[in-house]
Parts: sequence; structure tokens; C-alpha cells
Amino acid sequence: MVAIHPFDTVRDYEVRLASKLVKDAYPASANVHFVQIDKVDPPKKSMIKYLEAEKSGLKVPEIPRVLYCYYYTNTLDFNKALVNVTVGHIITKTQLPKGVVGPFLPEDMMEWEEHCTNHPLVQAEIAKLKLPKGYSVRNDPWIYATDNANERRPLVQFFMYVLAGNGHSESNHYSLPLKFSPVFEAFTKKFIRIDYLPGGYDETTVPTQPWQEVPCVEYHPDLNGEDTTSRIVKPLLISQPEGPSFSIEGSKVKWQGWEFRVSSSAREGFVIYDVYFKGRQVFYRIALSEMTVPYGDPRAPYHRKQAFDLGDCGFGVNGNQLGLGCDCLGVIKYLDGVGIDSTGEPHVIPNTICMHEQDNGILYKHVNYRTNNAVVARKREFVVQTIATVANYEYVINVKFAVDGNIDIETRATGILSTMPIDENVKVPWGTIVGPNVMAAYHQHILSFRIDPAIDGHKNTVVYDDVVKLPTHPVKNPFGIGFVTDRKYVEKAGSVDQSPFTNRTYKIINENVINPISKTPVGYKVEIPPRQMILADKDSFNVKRAKFATEAVWVTKYNDHQLFAAGEFTNQSQRDTGLGEWANGVDPVRNEDIVVWATLGFTHIPRVEDFPVMPVETHNIHLQPNNFFTRNPALDLPQANNNFNKSQLVAGNPTKACCKNNL
Amino acid sequence: MVAIHPFDTVRDYEVRLASKLVKDAYPASANVHFVQIDKVDPPKKSMIKYLEAEKSGLKVPEIPRVLYCYYYTNTLDFNKALVNVTVGHIITKTQLPKGVVGPFLPEDMMEWEEHCTNHPLVQAEIAKLKLPKGYSVRNDPWIYATDNANERRPLVQFFMYVLAGNGHSESNHYSLPLKFSPVFEAFTKKFIRIDYLPGGYDETTVPTQPWQEVPCVEYHPDLNGEDTTSRIVKPLLISQPEGPSFSIEGSKVKWQGWEFRVSSSAREGFVIYDVYFKGRQVFYRIALSEMTVPYGDPRAPYHRKQAFDLGDCGFGVNGNQLGLGCDCLGVIKYLDGVGIDSTGEPHVIPNTICMHEQDNGILYKHVNYRTNNAVVARKREFVVQTIATVANYEYVINVKFAVDGNIDIETRATGILSTMPIDENVKVPWGTIVGPNVMAAYHQHILSFRIDPAIDGHKNTVVYDDVVKLPTHPVKNPFGIGFVTDRKYVEKAGSVDQSPFTNRTYKIINENVINPISKTPVGYKVEIPPRQMILADKDSFNVKRAKFATEAVWVTKYNDHQLFAAGEFTNQSQRDTGLGEWANGVDPVRNEDIVVWATLGFTHIPRVEDFPVMPVETHNIHLQPNNFFTRNPALDLPQANNNFNKSQLVAGNPTKACCKNNL
Repeated sequence: MVAIHPFDTVRDYEVRLASKLVKDAYPASANVHFVQIDKVDPPKKSMIKYLEAEKSGLKVPEIPRVLYCYYYTNTLDFNKALVNVTVGHIITKTQLPKGVVGPFLPEDMMEWEEHCTNHPLVQAEIAKLKLPKGYSVRNDPWIYATDNANERRPLVQFFMYVLAGNGHSESNHYSLPLKFSPVFEAFTKKFIRIDYLPGGYDETTVPTQPWQEVPCVEYHPDLNGEDTTSRIVKPLLISQPEGPSFSIEGSKVKWQGWEFRVSSSAREGFVIYDVYFKGRQVFYRIALSEMTVPYGDPRAPYHRKQAFDLGDCGFGVNGNQLGLGCDCLGVIKYLDGVGIDSTGEPHVIPNTICMHEQDNGILYKHVNYRTNNAVVARKREFVVQTIATVANYEYVINVKFAVDGNIDIETRATGILSTMPIDENVKVPWGTIVGPNVMAAYHQHILSFRIDPAIDGHKNTVVYDDVVKLPTHPVKNPFGIGFVTDRKYVEKAGSVDQSPFTNRTYKIINENVINPISKTPVGYKVEIPPRQMILADKDSFNVKRAKFATEAVWVTKYNDHQLFAAGEFTNQSQRDTGLGEWANGVDPVRNEDIVVWATLGFTHIPRVEDFPVMPVETHNIHLQPNNFFTRNPALDLPQANNNFNKSQLVAGNPTKACCKNNL
Repeated sequence: MVAIHPFDTVRDYEVRLASKLVKDAYPASANVHFVQIDKVDPPKKSMIKYLEAEKSGLKVPEIPRVLYCYYYTNTLDFNKALVNVTVGHIITKTQLPKGVVGPFLPEDMMEWEEHCTNHPLVQAEIAKLKLPKGYSVRNDPWIYATDNANERRPLVQFFMYVLAGNGHSESNHYSLPLKFSPVFEAFTKKFIRIDYLPGGYDETTVPTQPWQEVPCVEYHPDLNGEDTTSRIVKPLLISQPEGPSFSIEGSKVKWQGWEFRVSSSAREGFVIYDVYFKGRQVFYRIALSEMTVPYGDPRAPYHRKQAFDLGDCGFGVNGNQLGLGCDCLGVIKYLDGVGIDSTGEPHVIPNTICMHEQDNGILYKHVNYRTNNAVVARKREFVVQTIATVANYEYVINVKFAVDGNIDIETRATGILSTMPIDENVKVPWGTIVGPNVMAAYHQHILSFRIDPAIDGHKNTVVYDDVVKLPTHPVKNPFGIGFVTDRKYVEKAGSVDQSPFTNRTYKIINENVINPISKTPVGYKVEIPPRQMILADKDSFNVKRAKFATEAVWVTKYNDHQLFAAGEFTNQSQRDTGLGEWANGVDPVRNEDIVVWATLGFTHIPRVEDFPVMPVETHNIHLQPNNFFTRNPALDLPQANNNFNKSQLVAGNPTKACCKNNL
């Protein structure tokens, strides 16, 4: 077994020890109830020493493993403990102020789900539906979000659906939403009230009526009525007979000049650490930091549909067990995650991260038309993938390392739309009718990726370059066709506006290292697609809680434990305690140890084609070397040729000479 | 042999007949000199009848094959003829006004290249360089572009480079640009003058000096000094043991519910015709229409660097012979193109279009967290690819059809930067130093894709939807979180502004066909990335010649032969005779037969990493069904599973259960 590394995924025995130490610190009567346990990154200062020693093969300093535990005591007191599991003692334990709500544990949510449906008052409401024989009711527990500054109770709301009478566990209840929504207190499971949902043009609601039967739009192959034999899909096999080009030892990955570590995270899904390419340091840490999903339907209680999928529940603890040949094609290496139950007992989340190589077409090509000689190389990528299921939605996160020094951070949204009831012959301006009496409201997905750069070292600067026309001038620009770049520096912690029409690009540079060819500082470009940011009013809770969602690019001075864009505790939060505080306009960020936060937003106006299960919507952020190397860093790739790639002609296609790329 | 179809690629015997008929129409003394010959699309009106008959299995009407011929007579008279090669007569032949310059024939360009270097006045200039033994001079002929409204001669300018003394034909002359640029008259090969190129901060030039030796930055594996064995790249094989899922007969492709035709084009590379998905008509014709590449260096003669890569020379006639296992991986079907020589004799451009299937990750997924059952399907794509070499640059065009009804039009720019000399210790604000004494000027690539829609028929409308916040209102929007879409209709031929911050999306809809689920018109979305458009002054020749480059989306009323965004003849054009005339603000385009023109622009600020050969820059336009189907059209895909996909675990990775997607 490989010795544990400070960046390694938390181990089960570490979780067990931490939870035991915490439980032992309270009387049994306190009923310690855990909701999340994971490792804490070591202070960067000590990690830098550690990594330097490691690189130079020296003895590495002892760095204790520290875990955080979120847990409730006496049912409703929310606490956080930091536990040193190397020596085995609690560093601190703090009870958080009333009103701070921790992330919900998936196991608790499922228990509450059952409790809700079985509650007499909910049963009474269900009875009014007079459901046909065999039909039943299923609910999705939902984060309660925030609409009242005085609300201190941890709450959970439930959206109710009819489960069709086909007796199939995979029947699509999202196709049959109901018009009432019970609210309970979390943990105590105390009934609070039932909210009624509008079905018409406006906010008007009506008492629960007998349910009018409509067809259920099914997605499962057993139920959707599709004939899959009508499509001719022949196998397309991806194989690596000589094995993959990567090597993985513990959390350490080596591939094509890249070296980094991958670790699973209860909250973030996975984290990439200590990234080098061709022997040069480029990033210290890369991870998804937060995601908020605000909905645009203004009618109560829909105004409270604003999830924070990392802070409210956790991306890693909701990670899928990935399937060979299903979620991942080729030669696959899997990593596991670690979940817990409320007693603090760990369990494995198997195969929740997959890693593999893939071909992504042509990387570079040139043909000398004089000789017809071609040089051509293929773009090979190394993919780190995880998929989280957050109730109805699925998110696929791919971080792809390419042979030319690029990193592509790809998000794919799929799964099932969050649906609402809508009456016959009604249209609403904030949603699309996606099935009989079912509407999918417009919403936004706004993700924040935390990028902790180390471009040739830790002292970095963020600049942004606009491309602007030169004024016409009889001598300097007589034909009015000249244009130049205009560079600006981010001096203080804050954000940078988007400006696609000046081709604004954001770069992380190291002003202390000059590229000998271009005579400019070395850097990496951060390419973020220009997007609409959060639409809600500036003074709405949606925005107060998610400042990160108001701008595309943020720069802060590095601080240990400033990891989460909307703050550490987002569940029913009143305000953003993350970038809202850290991007303070005061901290110097030029030629400092900085963190860049990239906001990837997409406004989702549902299509009928997105139902009953949604084809992926794909969005990308690119990190690209920019005057970092002294020439194309992929020149050392072997030339593409068919002795190596063994491609074939379709039968009956006359063969012709392959590309000449050697003389 | 399959009977010829009106959309089929021109046949060699058709070219031979057309050129013979034209030559026979002139006295031998006229020296008919051809520069381009290809087929003309039949009038849409007759094609619609033809295609309807074809679809219903009726006898198709006789449609004559018509070819256009561009040719010079008496050396400098430029003519166009339309020839009916079915019956074998010339329909029209016209001599074009002086000043109209046709596309240059690759064969002519290479002849002029040699003529230039060998010309005594150029040799005299070369002599002043006092090149070291073994070194020689190589030139790239360049389109002359436009800076003078009175210039009527067809001209060609030459950029001169040193060819290093290594005796290797693939040595990278672009690394060693010289400071003089001869200009000749085309066809007559008459010497006009030598322009001198600035090497300093400004437009100042100096007489040719002895060449100062600097290292050549080489790209070819024989020369670049890289050790390709240092990278461990194991084979990644893509195979289809049961053959591909597509069938191709003549120009007709059938795959996964898609049906369309692919034909090669001398000017456009390839054209996609008559596109159906799942039995419904979606597009009549899709092709790249034009591309202009204006440079930002304001100094003479660089202000004349504005190529029109389709109109000035032709994308298809500069198409690469694609290599199995080099340009295309998997099971490949190739199509040939047809080029000509100046006598009108056709030749095959072999394998210039490749077609194959590929996997593009997850298409959709959902996991029911209650049962842990997953549904997951993979995104299979069918790719039509061509690659053109335009002197230094390469462009890779991929049109990818996906199983969910999406079409992704992908452009990859690679090849070698167009370089200019720069003196030691000089920096300029409009270029990047990419090697010793070599500078790559900032430039733009602005492509126009012509999309002729037929969304459930030919009467279509373009709309654009903005997402806007609802005003806060005590009853209608009490929490200030509501947002809705605001739809506008394009009524008259013209353009639509970009507006990313209102999430503006462009849709082609059919107002006569209502989606029964959403109760809204069926449509396809055209997704174009928000980009900086052409930077040059409104009244510069660069803009006058390329109006299409000023806006991202254009809509015109359909007219036969309105195919090219900047007009039919772009070489040394004075003004845009394409969209500049057709987008007239007058023609009705609502619920009419319309054409949509999508401008894909990217401003290229070269990186050192882009030299000596550039890793691809990739840009995409998406066409996506939008409330066109009544649900996800890919539900009939078989579920992904490893019996089918045969993926493998990395050796030593403990196996765990695959995804359960059947109960």
C-alpha cells in the first residue's frame, strides 16, 4: 500500500477515528448526528515545503491529516469540529449560530421523503386526489432556500408527484407533478404546513382536487415505448492493446508530461492538485467550488427554488457509481469516494471518478503545397470524470488534460427537468410545456470553478486584454485597418466584467518570469464563454446568497480555507459569505499568491426535447498556455500514421496512399 | 454505377465537355485559360419537384446538369460561361468588366511563384542578401487585396523568405521572413514593383541589407530536434468489427435517422444537401460560404493582407488528400474532389472528404436515487470532414450530425502563422514575436456559413429570444426573482445584433407548424458564440469588401445563385456584392423561403505556442432542434452497456458492478 499523501482522499479509518473522537466528546444523550466528514487541505505554506522536499527527493516534513466534521447535537444544534486524525485529538469544536444550516445528508433526505408521504396530514391531502387504482404518490425533498430573514429553523420542502400505476419503480413521476407541497422541519420532522401550487396563468391556487389522469411521459426503456431495434447502431470499440499511456500510483497521475494528483471530495466531487506540465508548475489546485440553480417562476413557493448543489448537499456524496462501457469508454481507471452515515460510519462510493485517454481529432497539421508533404499529429486527451445526481438533475464534470498543455473543464447538464403542474390550455411566460399538464420553468445553472494558479510559482497576476482598433491616421494607420491589444491589470481583490466585443481575454501571468521569445511575462489564458449572469434583482435573496453568480471572473488573495464561492454554509443562507466577503476591493492581488474564480453560467430555457430525459447541454472553460513555452509544446508528439492507429476503409472504398509525413 | 443525381459532385467527363465547348467557342488565338469549373445548383423550384418525386418513388423530372466555367481569354479578359452538359451547349458566356478578377488557379500560383524568384530584378535583390552557402530564397504568392479604387489589373504580391541551408524541402521558411515583397501582374507575369517591408517600430523601411543569420524554428520531425521517444503514447484504436452504422450510396448518406447528400465543391469544400432527420425535413443546403482573414498591422504593404479564402482561390481546390489513421480515425469512407488545370482538363483530388462515426461521451443520463437504477446513452456522431491548405494556414471543417438531432459545425484553424520580419529588440503593439526576428501580426478569421433551412418545409421565419427579468411587483414578482423570454421576429432581409447578456438565441421556426406539446411553432436553434466582428473602420476597404463580417447573423430571402457572402468575385473586389446587397432591409423574410448566414469570427492574437505549427483553435456553431420534436428524439437509442462497448479496466483496478440500467 502506498503511503498516505496529504492530498489523498480521506481514508475510511480516518473518518471512523474522527467520528469516534467527536462522539466521545459528548454525552450519549446529545445524540451526535453527522452530516458530512472529509479531509481539510493542509495549510498551503506547509504544503509548499512538503512538495518541494518531495520533488527534490528529500525527507518530507510531517503534516498531520485533519478532518472536518459537520454534525448535529441535541437534534437541532449544528456543530463543526476539526480533528487531527494523525495524533488523534479534536483541534476545535464549535457550535454554530442558530440559523446556520449544514448540508443535508442523502440518507436523512431519503428518510424525510418517506416520513413526508406517510404523514397523516399529507395522506389526507393525497386522499383528496382520488387516485386511480395502482397509482400512488412519490415526492422529491427539496432544499428550502431563503425568503425570510427571520427564519431560523432548518426546513425541507417536498414536491409531490403521481407515480403511474404501471408498478414499475422507474416510472417518471416528474411527468405528473401535483399541486401541493408539504414543508417540514428537518431532523425533528415536525410538520410545518402545506403550500399549494398554482396551475394557471398567475399565483392563484385552489384546494386539492381529484387528480385528472394524463399520460405519463416515460424515459425508461421498459416504459417509453420506443423500438430501439429501429436504429442500426454498430459497435464502436475503443481499445488500447498495449495498455494506456498513463500511470497512476495512489492519487498521483503521470501522463504525457502532465503530473498531478486527483482526490475525491465529499463536497466538490474531485479535486486536482499540484499540476505540472513538462516539468513546470502551472496550478496548485483546481475544483468545482459551487453551483447555484435559481428558477425564474416568480410564483410562491417556486420563488424558493434556488439550490446550491455543493454547499446544500454535496457533489461528491451524490456521486454516481460509474459504469464501464456506460459512462466511460476505453481503458478505464476508477477511483472511489467516501460517504458517511449519520453515525459517522464511512462507506465506499465505488467508481465515482473515472480516468481514461481519448482521441480528440487533429491537434496540428501543415501541408507544404510545393511538395505535398504533411505533418499531422492527433490531439490525445486525459479525462478525469465524475457524475453527480442531484435529485432530478445529473451533472457530468470532465477535466481534460491535452498534449498541448491545454486543460478543458467541461460541464454537461443532463437528467430530468424540475417540473411543475400546469392546467390544460394554459401558457406561462416563464416556462415551457414539456408534456401533458407539465411545465418546466426557465432557470439558470451558474457554476463557480476555483482555479488556484501557480504559473511558474505562486506569485501570479491576472490581466485582461482587449483588442481595440487603432485610430485612422495619415501615417500610422492610413487605411483604417490597424488594431492592437490593450492590457489591464487586476490590482485589488474583485471581479472583472465580460467584454466579448473587444475580444476580452483573461490571463494569469507571472510578471517575474519573462518568455525569452515573446519578451512578455509567461502565462495561462482562462477562456470563459461570455454569458448572462444571474438574472434576479440585486437585492433579492437569490443574489445576496450568490454574489459569485453576478460576475464571470473573480480574483482573490489566497487564504487557506477560502474554498467555496458562496461561503462554507449555503443551506438557507441569508447572504454570500464567500466571494461576497473576499473580493473586498482591498487585498492586493498583483504579483501575489492569488485565486481565480471562473463563473460558468447558462440560462436554461427548456425545450420539449429536454423531456423526459435531457440530451446533454455542454459548456466549457479552457486553460491554455499563453506565451508560457518557447514554441508549440506538442512538437515532440509522434506523427500520426496508420501503422500506429490502424484505421480502416469502409468496405468497397478504393484505398489511396496515406498522408506522406516522412520523406 | 449509380445514376447521376442533381446534387452529385461534378464528374470529370462533365468538366471535359464544358471546357471543350468553351474552347471551341473561341479562336485558338484567344488562348482560353481556365481558372475554375464546377457544377451549378439547379433552380430550387425544380429541385423541390425533383426531390418530392424522388421521395414518393415517382419518376423524377429531367434536370439538366449545368456547369460554370471561369476563364481568361487573350490573357487578361476574364469570362464566365454557363454550360449545359446534359445536352451539350453553352447557355451564356459573358466577359466580365475590367477590374473583376477571378479566383486564382493553384497551378498558376505555383508557376508565378517560380517566375518571381527567377526574375532578374528579384534575383538582384536576393543577391544583396549575401546569403550563406546552401541558403536560398522561397516565396509565398499572396492575393493582392485592395487599397486603390482605380486599380484594374489582376495583381499578385509575393512574400519572400529565406530557406535554411539544411537542404531539407520541409524546412520552415516562415521562420525567416525577408523585408521585400515583389508585385507582379497576374497572367502576364509583368513585373510591377518591389515593396519594402518595415522591420522596426513604425512604417520606415530600409534598402535590402545582407541577411543576418538567425536560427530557423523548424516544425518538421526531421528538423525540429525533438525526441519523440520521450513521450509514451500507446495506441488508442477505434474499430467497428461489425462495420459502420452508416450507409452511403453515391452522394446519399443514411445514418441514425439522418438522410442527406454530400457533394464536393471547388469553392466551398463540401456541401450538405437535402437534410432529413427521423423523416422530417430540416435543411435544404448547408455549406461554408466565405472566409476573410484581415490583418491588424497597419503598415504598408501589410494593410493589403486580407484574403478571401473561398472567393480568391477556393476551399475545395485547395483540399488535402486526407490520410487514413492520420486525419481520420476509425472506419472511414472517403469522397474525392475534382480540380482542373488551365486547359480545362479535370483531375481527381483524392480522399478530400472523409466521413466516419465517433463517440462523443454521454448523451443523456439519469439515476433514480431511490433504486440506484440508471439510464444512460452515448452520444454517437457522424462526421463529414475536409481540410484545406491555404498557403501557410490549414482549416479543418467538420460537420457533425448527432443522434439527438443536433448538427455541430466545427472549424479548426491550424498550420503556420503568416509571419513578418522584426528587428532585434523591437516590440510592436499589433503582433507577437514568435521566434528570432520573426513576428506574427494580430489578425481575424471571419467565416460565413450559409444555412438554407427547410424546417418542416421551405416557409420559415427567424426569431430571436432575449431572457429578461420581470419587474419586481408586490403580487406578480414579490421576491424579484422572475424572468421571462421576449421574442422578436425578423421581418425584412437584414442582420441581427449579438446580445449575450440577454442570452439572445436565434431560432429558425416554421410558423405554420405548431408543436402539439409546447403549443409553439416548431424550430431549430442556431447557436453562434458571441464574438468580436471585423475591427477595421466602417469605410475601410476591408469592411466594404466583407459586409458579412460586420454582423453575426444575417437573414435573406432565398434566391438561386446567392451563395457567397461577399459576392461571386472577391479577388481585388472593391465592395461586397453579397450580403451587402441582398440584406437590403426590403425583402420580406417572415414565413418565406429564407437563407440564414452565420458569421463565425475569431480574433487571433498569436501565442509563441502557435509557432512553428499551431495547435488547433476550435470554434463551433450548433444547430439544435428547439420544440421541433414532441420529446427527446434519442429515446430510441439502445442503452449503453459493456457487452456492446467492450471497455476494459486498467490492469490491477478491482472490478465493480457495471451500471444497472435494466431491472
